[in-house]
Amino acid sequence: MSSAGAYSRQEIGLALDVLETPCLVLEKSRLVANVARLKRHLQPLGVRLRPHLKTAKSIDVARLVMDGAQGPATVSTLREAEYFFSHGVTDLLYAVGIAPNKLDHVFDLRRRGADLAIVLDNLETAQLVAAKSAERRDPLPVLIEVDTDDHRSGIKPPDSILVAVGRTLHAGGAVLRGVMTHAGSSYSLQNQASFEATAEQERSGIVAAAAALRAAGLPCPEVSVGSTPTAHFARDLAGVTEVRAGVFMFFDLVMAGIGVCDIEDIALSVLATVIGHQHDKGWIIVDAGWMAMSRDRGTARLTVDQGYGVVCDLTGDPIPDLIMIDANQEHGILAARPGAQSSPPKLPVGAMVRIFPNHACATGAQHDRYYVVDHDRIVSAIWPRIYGW
Amino acid sequence: MSSAGAYSRQEIGLALDVLETPCLVLEKSRLVANVARLKRHLQPLGVRLRPHLKTAKSIDVARLVMDGAQGPATVSTLREAEYFFSHGVTDLLYAVGIAPNKLDHVFDLRRRGADLAIVLDNLETAQLVAAKSAERRDPLPVLIEVDTDDHRSGIKPPDSILVAVGRTLHAGGAVLRGVMTHAGSSYSLQNQASFEATAEQERSGIVAAAAALRAAGLPCPEVSVGSTPTAHFARDLAGVTEVRAGVFMFFDLVMAGIGVCDIEDIALSVLATVIGHQHDKGWIIVDAGWMAMSRDRGTARLTVDQGYGVVCDLTGDPIPDLIMIDANQEHGILAARPGAQSSPPKLPVGAMVRIFPNHACATGAQHDRYYVVDHDRIVSAIWPRIYGW
Repeated sequence: MSSAGAYSRQEIGLALDVLETPCLVLEKSRLVANVARLKRHLQPLGVRLRPHLKTAKSIDVARLVMDGAQGPATVSTLREAEYFFSHGVTDLLYAVGIAPNKLDHVFDLRRRGADLAIVLDNLETAQLVAAKSAERRDPLPVLIEVDTDDHRSGIKPPDSILVAVGRTLHAGGAVLRGVMTHAGSSYSLQNQASFEATAEQERSGIVAAAAALRAAGLPCPEVSVGSTPTAHFARDLAGVTEVRAGVFMFFDLVMAGIGVCDIEDIALSVLATVIGHQHDKGWIIVDAGWMAMSRDRGTARLTVDQGYGVVCDLTGDPIPDLIMIDANQEHGILAARPGAQSSPPKLPVGAMVRIFPNHACATGAQHDRYYVVDHDRIVSAIWPRIYGW
Repeated sequence: MSSAGAYSRQEIGLALDVLETPCLVLEKSRLVANVARLKRHLQPLGVRLRPHLKTAKSIDVARLVMDGAQGPATVSTLREAEYFFSHGVTDLLYAVGIAPNKLDHVFDLRRRGADLAIVLDNLETAQLVAAKSAERRDPLPVLIEVDTDDHRSGIKPPDSILVAVGRTLHAGGAVLRGVMTHAGSSYSLQNQASFEATAEQERSGIVAAAAALRAAGLPCPEVSVGSTPTAHFARDLAGVTEVRAGVFMFFDLVMAGIGVCDIEDIALSVLATVIGHQHDKGWIIVDAGWMAMSRDRGTARLTVDQGYGVVCDLTGDPIPDLIMIDANQEHGILAARPGAQSSPPKLPVGAMVRIFPNHACATGAQHDRYYVVDHDRIVSAIWPRIYGW
């Protein structure tokens, strides 16, 4: 019933068990609650939310998350920029350092009406972007990436390189729109005090970078931060203009494992069907393997390793101690969590389960659509997802 | 230049560096050589090859691999069955234990002309398939899955359950087409003697299962085995009618790491561009992260851990000791292999590289197309790939 193109509005109101498995299930009320939670937290801090749509890759989800139909929004690929722009989203930040071979594509999107800003963190790229901006007579808006937690990209203090990059852009034909950072190290923390400390480190680091540019006589209107843990635990965002975050909309087992959300907040799951057993080992075999769950095993480094996922009943309630302990491409092996006190039920062939993922971004990317539900009822037509570059 | 739909035949003959990154690159001569190698090995053993198209998910690749335009072929999803059938491939085995909710779809494909066979390993499913075959007046062809290496699904000796399943199918309205097994444990072996031993264990186990069915007066025309390591190292396939294998067509760092191929045989790579550096750490940042490479870290358990991939120049030659040591969603971090004797070159911003993957099936699944090359030249129009279910 769920083969490509065969799904229609007539399934609305039916139970989940009419679907062919595996497929991606989105609990709409949890999505709405997760979005409301972050907005409630950010509103009194006086910053706008520029949601990172790489987690959703769906205009239907984006419309429930964005402040307006035109954005603002963050994307991780130019394919996402093309797609969301085709649906009327114009205020876009492409938040991965620009590669020279993507500049023609960026100019083309802007020529068609997208207010697409880019990111860079080095002098060579700044020189190229400035020169191309002048040559094309389209001053590209640029945020300079700053490294505030030593985890990946961005310019670190001292500020001489930052100022040189800013001056190159500003003097050379581009638009210096501001600075941005991403406290990716926050994903490896595990308590509220450390989230708060990292959020303050992210804030103070980026505000100092903005101050350095301004002290050199350069403009810096935007000061952009963001990661799901720091966005939720920041107590003060003075000097920051916007927050980017993505996984907050769905949450996942890593976010629950480090304490950013509860397991009951997870909005995304994979629907699967029991296809067999190895009774001697206590294994239940399902038709969702790593292709449906992704290979992401983010909880492996946490206090509780959830395998390839936590197994729930059709309404989305976890079945105690039942996880996906291993996976092949299209096979998942469900079994009791190592050290479990209870024996999970022996689900018969044909039984259907929902499985919470380690990482919503990675699991979502394996699927081309969302089935939108309220508990075990389908409440919407399909929401398509995009993928690739 | 490579945005969706913008690519055309006019790029044939151009160098790879015209492409937008990241993207998936397929070295055609290596694909052709890998296919020829396995066929050369199997031909004197008297078995047919039923290639597993889950690795390729592309009709253009399939046509270089299959013995004929109509197959035979193996698929891992009904989406693959739909897609290959729409391109004229009719002789199809869906090699994952059937879920009850997929039977309507299977009957529908068969009604439209696909000779689609299914797999199961338990009495409950056999009873359902027999009943549905009778009800639909379409005797479904079934291969019973047998477990010959204790790694996943399938019926194990004693043969009483196997015979009961076979009898249920044969007497009840389905077609008992034979038995199949998959020696998936072979991926964790690392030398020729163990591959040969596991291939013989796979062969003798499945031939014994076929004999048990025949001894009970049941038909068993097909005896199907397969995994890429056992397919290459089997010395005798007496009693076997067909071999299934998939990753052999592309190979990858896991297959090279366990000794099934050389690193120079790997046909699949991801094209990426340098977008920045962290000079103090010796890091080169590229625009291919785990979304482009997949989260598969299969080499982590092998003698040589290749990180997220081995970095090559544009012609596909490895750059000594340069690997992707870590990855975020759209960022990859290239650095010297831990313990490396040499210092890899400091690739400048804008430089492009090709990266061999840990696991061809997982990396391929992240992309919607192949760019087909001979060294650094594009030699074909795009070959599209499918995904999802």
